[in-house]
Amino acid sequence: MSITEEAPVRVARSGGRNARRNLRAAPLADDVRPIRAGLEGTTYKPLSEADVEKVHGAVLDVLENIGLSQATPTCIEACESLGAIYGEDGRLRFPRDVVMGVVASANRDFALHGRDPKHDMHPQGSKVHFGTAGAAVHVVDVEKNEYRESYLRDIYDAARIVEGLDNIHFFQRPMVARDVVDPKEMDLNTLFACLSGTTKHIGTSFTLADYVPDALQMMYRVAGGEEAFRARPFVSNSNCFVVPPLRFAADACDVLEECVKGGMPVLLLSAGQAGATAPAAIAGAVVQAVAEVLAGLVYVNALAPGHPAIFGTWPFVSDLRTGAMSGGSGEQALLTAACGQMANFYNLPGGSAAGMCDAKMPDIQAGWEKGIAYVLAGMAGTNLVYEAAGMHGSLMGFCLESLFLDNDALGQAQRCVRGIEVNDQTLSIEAMRDVCVDGPGHYLGHGQTLELMQREYLYPDLANRFSPKEWVELGKPDIVQMAIERKKKVLAEFFPDHVDEETDAALREEFVIHLAREHMGR
Amino acid sequence: MSITEEAPVRVARSGGRNARRNLRAAPLADDVRPIRAGLEGTTYKPLSEADVEKVHGAVLDVLENIGLSQATPTCIEACESLGAIYGEDGRLRFPRDVVMGVVASANRDFALHGRDPKHDMHPQGSKVHFGTAGAAVHVVDVEKNEYRESYLRDIYDAARIVEGLDNIHFFQRPMVARDVVDPKEMDLNTLFACLSGTTKHIGTSFTLADYVPDALQMMYRVAGGEEAFRARPFVSNSNCFVVPPLRFAADACDVLEECVKGGMPVLLLSAGQAGATAPAAIAGAVVQAVAEVLAGLVYVNALAPGHPAIFGTWPFVSDLRTGAMSGGSGEQALLTAACGQMANFYNLPGGSAAGMCDAKMPDIQAGWEKGIAYVLAGMAGTNLVYEAAGMHGSLMGFCLESLFLDNDALGQAQRCVRGIEVNDQTLSIEAMRDVCVDGPGHYLGHGQTLELMQREYLYPDLANRFSPKEWVELGKPDIVQMAIERKKKVLAEFFPDHVDEETDAALREEFVIHLAREHMGR
Repeated sequence: MSITEEAPVRVARSGGRNARRNLRAAPLADDVRPIRAGLEGTTYKPLSEADVEKVHGAVLDVLENIGLSQATPTCIEACESLGAIYGEDGRLRFPRDVVMGVVASANRDFALHGRDPKHDMHPQGSKVHFGTAGAAVHVVDVEKNEYRESYLRDIYDAARIVEGLDNIHFFQRPMVARDVVDPKEMDLNTLFACLSGTTKHIGTSFTLADYVPDALQMMYRVAGGEEAFRARPFVSNSNCFVVPPLRFAADACDVLEECVKGGMPVLLLSAGQAGATAPAAIAGAVVQAVAEVLAGLVYVNALAPGHPAIFGTWPFVSDLRTGAMSGGSGEQALLTAACGQMANFYNLPGGSAAGMCDAKMPDIQAGWEKGIAYVLAGMAGTNLVYEAAGMHGSLMGFCLESLFLDNDALGQAQRCVRGIEVNDQTLSIEAMRDVCVDGPGHYLGHGQTLELMQREYLYPDLANRFSPKEWVELGKPDIVQMAIERKKKVLAEFFPDHVDEETDAALREEFVIHLAREHMGR
Repeated sequence: MSITEEAPVRVARSGGRNARRNLRAAPLADDVRPIRAGLEGTTYKPLSEADVEKVHGAVLDVLENIGLSQATPTCIEACESLGAIYGEDGRLRFPRDVVMGVVASANRDFALHGRDPKHDMHPQGSKVHFGTAGAAVHVVDVEKNEYRESYLRDIYDAARIVEGLDNIHFFQRPMVARDVVDPKEMDLNTLFACLSGTTKHIGTSFTLADYVPDALQMMYRVAGGEEAFRARPFVSNSNCFVVPPLRFAADACDVLEECVKGGMPVLLLSAGQAGATAPAAIAGAVVQAVAEVLAGLVYVNALAPGHPAIFGTWPFVSDLRTGAMSGGSGEQALLTAACGQMANFYNLPGGSAAGMCDAKMPDIQAGWEKGIAYVLAGMAGTNLVYEAAGMHGSLMGFCLESLFLDNDALGQAQRCVRGIEVNDQTLSIEAMRDVCVDGPGHYLGHGQTLELMQREYLYPDLANRFSPKEWVELGKPDIVQMAIERKKKVLAEFFPDHVDEETDAALREEFVIHLAREHMGR
């Protein structure tokens, strides 16, 4: 009858249901979890093979014929040593054989380490990882429906929340500590807050090269020595060595050189904005970003051949009506995914940004903007998806509650990245025969169903799948309210000791540390 | 410096901004709109070519060796005429040459007409269209945060809202008119409400074959005669001819035969539920759905060779912990996209369901569930994406406000389906040279930027892209509240006259019509 013919099957409660619930209560071993870090994104190709070749050809053309301006003397010297040509017009040009030589020889096999080895990432091939990043100057206060200034303690809070969320694989500092006025103290305290909050891989940046030695000192101390850090560097330098379009950034280049010397992997970050600091055409924005990052790759490999560098094509998108950034647009999702694909083309560990929605608050707009961006970036095989958790307002606001919400959405996106396994067992011909010809006419109790419920199906954390009736009985749970409560609980109860008391004391002796010990539960 | 190095460029207000805003105020011709109905989804392949062949092989195996039970006498007779074999075990089996003969000869070139020809859909190749569907028994009352019974007037209201939303391309009846108790009156009034509310293509269903002649009579009258309807049938029959797993549904088959005779295109709808009425393995759920729909295709083509039929593989997903449907899961998004891809493989106009989120209300969960499902279905080339607008609670509740919200999310998804154009102009080498070597160092005023802002960039309707400062100045607009206001305005002001006064009067004379003329602004 027409009332129910398209309605879902609602299965009556049964003994089987309790059995299944109990089965699920047992924790899953990592290798049978339906999702994990490093799933391979291979099913979505935003660019055809021919289009990838066209982009690549244009990139080589731009590097060879237009080049970059404002290179620093050490940058020029380094790049010239590999064959780059510094012109009388002040532009540094990269002949195609120079570029391709570096692409061929660049280090593509490095890991990005966590302090805890279980969080090591291997950004090779089309393996996908999601994490935070950004330089938001506000915290999104969901309870008050307002944006307030971001502080150092918010960075620490974000780090310790991320530590416990399975679908967020690394922690690049997402906010600016506006309560730490001195820029060097800000950089060092930001690093301290990250190190104290998480054992996942950390990304951070430095304002001036002069600050880097002290930062390295801090990292070495936490690692148990320089050698230990260099063996498993657990902090990378997020480095905007270029100010698009096609200009080197002097301070950042100086920072980069210090970080390379100090043994930090570098994220070569090109953050143009289509229609403002990059071409308005999506393809052109990709070309410019790839060209800029490859110039950076030549630079890094000239400084230290084989140094770990991440192909950080991060072009953003403008709303062309106003020129303002639109991080949640479909154009942005496409642009990011195409960049992820280009990194795969060069077989270089690549990172791009996805999920920095335009929505100011964790509302339905935030949901669709993030969800669309996550799956496109992931299914295209973007190795490192930055800005993927917590970010709002086109990078202006970071939301602690959204870490919990985004962790759930990222889980669903990762399920999509994992894709569909097709083999004799999953094709299920025997199961159909069992059920239809000889059996009960449904699959509820079939062995295949029970087996796959753990391996193939992902169950959300906060998202609700209740029937309308159950939803009413449970008091109409609101997902944002649930995230608020979860955040409060974690912040009240989880005080990690990743930096032990002794090291903490030593660091406080050596540096001006602004993060109050009380806030760290000490 | 690190505060701003990853922050977005915020462009100062300028004369150029006003010029761009004015340019955007002019309506766009359809051929330059960045998105439209029928964009081609070609970039996402949930199944590899080899996996598609494996699924196809399994489908033929299932049809040939397991077959379907509970075929009606006329169904058996029809299918036997094409070579199907009715076994002593009561199962109707379809040898592979029978199936492939029908696949080869089936009608794949038909349009799905709107009453207004501008809404005609051409579901060929990988062209993508999104619309409503379902049999929700509740309306989601957003203002009261509750589910209430759905009524006939809600169907009419949904239809007239959809009429004005560009990114929703067809209207299949999404709710059950629970205030119309008599099943025949319910079916006829549902059809009447759809016809009165929209000129987009309509889908509806019928409880019993006996009701079809009167329904056809109503459609013929509205069309201006049977011949006119048959020339451009603007209503298709959504028909659950199969009760998975692999069982024909007698009443629906009888309805199907009447609809075929009457000139209605039929949506051959197989709505199994993985883990309950379909295999728990995603691949197996695809196999069963394709097998069921191909059996239906043989049946339809046996009744009337070349009759327009939509390959309606609509498998749903269970939350295997409880057996309840989970329409918002990543598994569901994958399953739907794989079905869209299989229809493309057979080069048959195909339809599947995406966007029927688990979330009870239009919250962030609804956003990510819908966004992920939309892009996967669209980028895989699903010709007709059903249930894509307004649906909540895994098909249990339909939300009028969400039509406006989903229209925005569907726009972003369609922008992703459109993809990235790569050609000499979009590669932007000349634009880079203009800007970087000879020009101002930014692309804001470049001719390419001004040209592409209309053709390449999609601007949302309700979604906000304000800076946090503007957002505060504007009173912190809430997107759900905006949708509530938009709904109220449309329902108060838009009373379409798609069914003219004379026809309306004639229909009310001939049938028991429950939709009050007052509610229709008459």
